[in-house]
Amino acid sequence: MKIIHKISEMQKFSASARRKGKTVALVPTMGCLHKGHLSLIDKAKKCADLTVVSIFVNPTQFGPKEDFSKYPRPIERDIAQCRKHGADAVFLPEAKEMYPKDSSTWVEELMLTRGLCGRSRPGHFKGVTTVVTKLFNAALPDIAVFGKKDFQQARVICRMVRDLNFPIRIILHETVREKDGLAMSSRNTYLSPEERKNALAIRRSLISAKSAILSGRKKIGCIGKMIRDEISSAGGRVDYVEIVDSSTLEPLAKLSGNILIAVASFFGKTRLIDNIDFKISTGG
Amino acid sequence: MKIIHKISEMQKFSASARRKGKTVALVPTMGCLHKGHLSLIDKAKKCADLTVVSIFVNPTQFGPKEDFSKYPRPIERDIAQCRKHGADAVFLPEAKEMYPKDSSTWVEELMLTRGLCGRSRPGHFKGVTTVVTKLFNAALPDIAVFGKKDFQQARVICRMVRDLNFPIRIILHETVREKDGLAMSSRNTYLSPEERKNALAIRRSLISAKSAILSGRKKIGCIGKMIRDEISSAGGRVDYVEIVDSSTLEPLAKLSGNILIAVASFFGKTRLIDNIDFKISTGG
Repeated sequence: MKIIHKISEMQKFSASARRKGKTVALVPTMGCLHKGHLSLIDKAKKCADLTVVSIFVNPTQFGPKEDFSKYPRPIERDIAQCRKHGADAVFLPEAKEMYPKDSSTWVEELMLTRGLCGRSRPGHFKGVTTVVTKLFNAALPDIAVFGKKDFQQARVICRMVRDLNFPIRIILHETVREKDGLAMSSRNTYLSPEERKNALAIRRSLISAKSAILSGRKKIGCIGKMIRDEISSAGGRVDYVEIVDSSTLEPLAKLSGNILIAVASFFGKTRLIDNIDFKISTGG
Repeated sequence: MKIIHKISEMQKFSASARRKGKTVALVPTMGCLHKGHLSLIDKAKKCADLTVVSIFVNPTQFGPKEDFSKYPRPIERDIAQCRKHGADAVFLPEAKEMYPKDSSTWVEELMLTRGLCGRSRPGHFKGVTTVVTKLFNAALPDIAVFGKKDFQQARVICRMVRDLNFPIRIILHETVREKDGLAMSSRNTYLSPEERKNALAIRRSLISAKSAILSGRKKIGCIGKMIRDEISSAGGRVDYVEIVDSSTLEPLAKLSGNILIAVASFFGKTRLIDNIDFKISTGG
């Protein structure tokens, strides 16, 4: 497995692969790899000849009061995990090459980023689309794999790829969960044992909400309140609960079609997100 | 010579070239090709195995009161010219594929676009960087060739390519001029015979300014006024005259180093731009 630091070296790796007729899949990560990331690597390996995992804690997607500096960076363990899961290269770009001092170009998606995390984390998605563009142009993949836990991010990346004509196929992979249902996240390591237990309310509330909708509950406001109440009673501080069309991410006027329920909530100082998506057929 | 309309077909053309070990150069244009464009094609042919000319009148780089709808589109003649100059493909994307209805992703450069045409044409460069990104991802060139008449555009594209890690080498080509000095431009066709004659004041004033600076004139304000006066006396309406560092495009405090004098001016309703760049050694 190659460890690559320089952008030009990364580009050469992929160009050389392509000349040999091989396809390349990229799994972009911020490191602190958990089973969710590892399942993306496994997926990538099934979809392409060569798998590249990028590890870069992207400063521009963190807000000024967020956890950039304390974001966990267990780089040796991450590299070992990539090797174990059969990655062909790990791309570890340096911040000073990804963002030169006079760096001044940004990529921004303006529609799908208006609600959900886009509303509560101003600038976050601008950082995401910019860094993913930089990573795409460095790794030049045929395929890139993203997880559905960051559902809005995944939609935004798909839109960006379409709009900017990136010759890349995006594969979305299901959220991987702990046995008790908590969505895998690098930020779970921040939780105290009690917060960890309380945080299960997120998943529980999403499942209840889906059941309620499937069993005929119609009022979007009530469903939203149900989720908020369940999280609050468990000691969580709700950032948002949104019930939206899973393609446009626009709030739904009524419960039909492709539904996404997305939640962000603080347990202690840790902000966690999760979501559930399902379809309600409009017939009958 | 291939005529390509679909983005996916364009991508296949370049991917297939690359698999055969061939390099691709792109000459992005808005059509209405003149000798300036043709010199870019000639240059491209010397730098790469295959030359692609894109012709796309990009709506998003025109302001609401600008000449998008009346911009000349002599497409058959353009195609004949490309063929004559040995292009291997002409890429003619359709607006509805370049900008789908719900298109919502933009690329923006924020530093080099603050002055000059960026100030007088709000949104112009955002349209340029966005469409050039789309064209780069469609044509996937190794090399792209731009003219120095649009000096600021060229600098912005170079910055974007560096910032976003595009694996593309940008080649800048000298401005091609009519025998009497007028910079070639598709917009010259708008000029009446009298405006055409008066417009020579732009080039004349730039040459005088350069001479004045080289012969020791130090006051930036006076040099600027000299240019303005010469253009105004010829009946032109000055949009801007700026004397800037040719790398940063920031206004100069004193006349030394790499100097760019850039002018935009209306003759009748037609806005023309031109520039001159030169170096003053700071020693002695």
